[in-house]
Amino acid sequence: MADRRPTETGTDTATESAEDRLIARYFKPLARHPAALGFNDDAAAIAPPPGCDLVLKTDGVIVGVHVFADDPPDAIARKALRMNLSDLAAKGATPLGFLMSIALPKDVPESWIAQFAEGLAADAEHFGCPLLGGDTDRTPGPAAVNVFAFGTVPHGLMVRRGGARPGERVVVTGSIGDAALGLALRRDASLRSRWRLDQHGHDHLADRYLLPQPRNAIANILREHASGAMDVSDGLAGDLAKLARVSGVAARVEAAQVPLSDAARAVLAAEPGLIETALSGGDDYEIVCTVPPGQVEAFRTAAKAAAVTVTDIGEISPGAGTSFLGGDGKSLTFKQASFSHF
Amino acid sequence: MADRRPTETGTDTATESAEDRLIARYFKPLARHPAALGFNDDAAAIAPPPGCDLVLKTDGVIVGVHVFADDPPDAIARKALRMNLSDLAAKGATPLGFLMSIALPKDVPESWIAQFAEGLAADAEHFGCPLLGGDTDRTPGPAAVNVFAFGTVPHGLMVRRGGARPGERVVVTGSIGDAALGLALRRDASLRSRWRLDQHGHDHLADRYLLPQPRNAIANILREHASGAMDVSDGLAGDLAKLARVSGVAARVEAAQVPLSDAARAVLAAEPGLIETALSGGDDYEIVCTVPPGQVEAFRTAAKAAAVTVTDIGEISPGAGTSFLGGDGKSLTFKQASFSHF
Repeated sequence: MADRRPTETGTDTATESAEDRLIARYFKPLARHPAALGFNDDAAAIAPPPGCDLVLKTDGVIVGVHVFADDPPDAIARKALRMNLSDLAAKGATPLGFLMSIALPKDVPESWIAQFAEGLAADAEHFGCPLLGGDTDRTPGPAAVNVFAFGTVPHGLMVRRGGARPGERVVVTGSIGDAALGLALRRDASLRSRWRLDQHGHDHLADRYLLPQPRNAIANILREHASGAMDVSDGLAGDLAKLARVSGVAARVEAAQVPLSDAARAVLAAEPGLIETALSGGDDYEIVCTVPPGQVEAFRTAAKAAAVTVTDIGEISPGAGTSFLGGDGKSLTFKQASFSHF
Repeated sequence: MADRRPTETGTDTATESAEDRLIARYFKPLARHPAALGFNDDAAAIAPPPGCDLVLKTDGVIVGVHVFADDPPDAIARKALRMNLSDLAAKGATPLGFLMSIALPKDVPESWIAQFAEGLAADAEHFGCPLLGGDTDRTPGPAAVNVFAFGTVPHGLMVRRGGARPGERVVVTGSIGDAALGLALRRDASLRSRWRLDQHGHDHLADRYLLPQPRNAIANILREHASGAMDVSDGLAGDLAKLARVSGVAARVEAAQVPLSDAARAVLAAEPGLIETALSGGDDYEIVCTVPPGQVEAFRTAAKAAAVTVTDIGEISPGAGTSFLGGDGKSLTFKQASFSHF
């Protein structure tokens, strides 16, 4: 956060730029961790715990592409951070900190930046993942936020995408499809009446789209029980297919077993065809993992103690390919298994 | 680089997206380091050397803001990486790797991406800083590249911006002002004749703007001899002022001692007022540091052995403020000490 700002001139006149003032006012208060060096250096410096591997991830949002221009700024900040925290969780990693790069158009009001920083501060605190540095720029394009999050796992114990083995159960956290249905609601408010959703159901789906709930609470538990894992960010169908492909195995899911919220159930009762949206839409930020059958109960119990429900939805077998079986035992067919930006 | 791409559907049809193909064709060949996991996982995993601190930095370029839209794509990739490598160098850190986030408009030709990846691969190899992961997106705005670079220093030995002490000498690497003059040439080709530059002089300045030469070769030497340091990216005047301010000291530079290339000397002979551009323009990617007087010679000798010239340009004293003294012993006055994006 200390980059690219002018300062005293050769005549010792202090000339503070607008960027200086924004950084000082809104982001410097976030530089609480000693490794951030008060945002007064070129880089952050932190001693990793001994015997650990670093787990490193970058992901971000472009306003108008991944989030709506009128989403609350604090939610945009939180989403950008949580997308990355979700990956750390799925890898069994404990957050160590993050850097953030922000590009803002000239016309962004200062109140937007203030709320953005407030949301960021709250989440950095909540997830124990301090902001250690960053970069701010003006852009002629839309606002864009890139997060670089890093965490640690005991050496060699990162839960890999490629670790699934035949005979294991496919297990998923939380509920699937809420965010995709919440996005549909966000795009077309009339769906609420068509889906006969009450206020609570509407808000549940809308919130699940706006603000991911990454499962960092079970990162350690996941490391203990799961052979393979990834976070579900681009749709369960497509993400599980990636996991199966990288692991060199086949995956079969009973669609009826996929955990749905009450709100999602209500929507699917009104419009059964939306099962495809639920299973292949993005932004769930749950974890899909594979667990030896004998460990599923222990995993479930430990996760429950961390306030996360996990559900057994299918099995891993030798071979290749991923299928979702409907009530009639036949494979469901999806137009698009997951979300792509290209 | 493995994010956000669709894959097999529920019916086991492989549906590779354009993003998949681009990643596979142009970036997967860069996933040579084991920590990159072949870009087949959600995150990179790497074991840091024991006893080290991590040094973490993010910086990037937006096309049309920090680089020109018609700059060669390989140079844009290299500049984005080298800007970050320069910070690692100035902190005395050895590169460990980097992640990269790339947002591209829809109309970017594949040849642009191919050349970009080629430049990136060459520099990752040259600087021993492997690409370990990343993220690709489409943007309605200009192309934007964010790099997250990380390196290591022995625990507690990062060279800090705030480490300058009264009595020390101000030392700078390489030559100053070339990039700022190269940028002026890039913007107005007619300057070449006004400055009476030959082809060699023109190309030297143009190249110094297009492609920074970060001083990673002397990172270890810097750690041994310098008390305080930062990279010169926003103009020597402004950057030294930052260093002095964070260190709580005053800095005084003899402008005539600041190292200039032959080309820059020729330009200043033609237009002496451009000394301000040379001293306060950005993109030098040299290192300014402070060294106890008794160590300057040893520092110079060691740096020379690493093919980097260093020049003693001034002194640190108690107090506050930074001044550049002209030949008449009076302080030079700059309109703007350094570059700001806001």
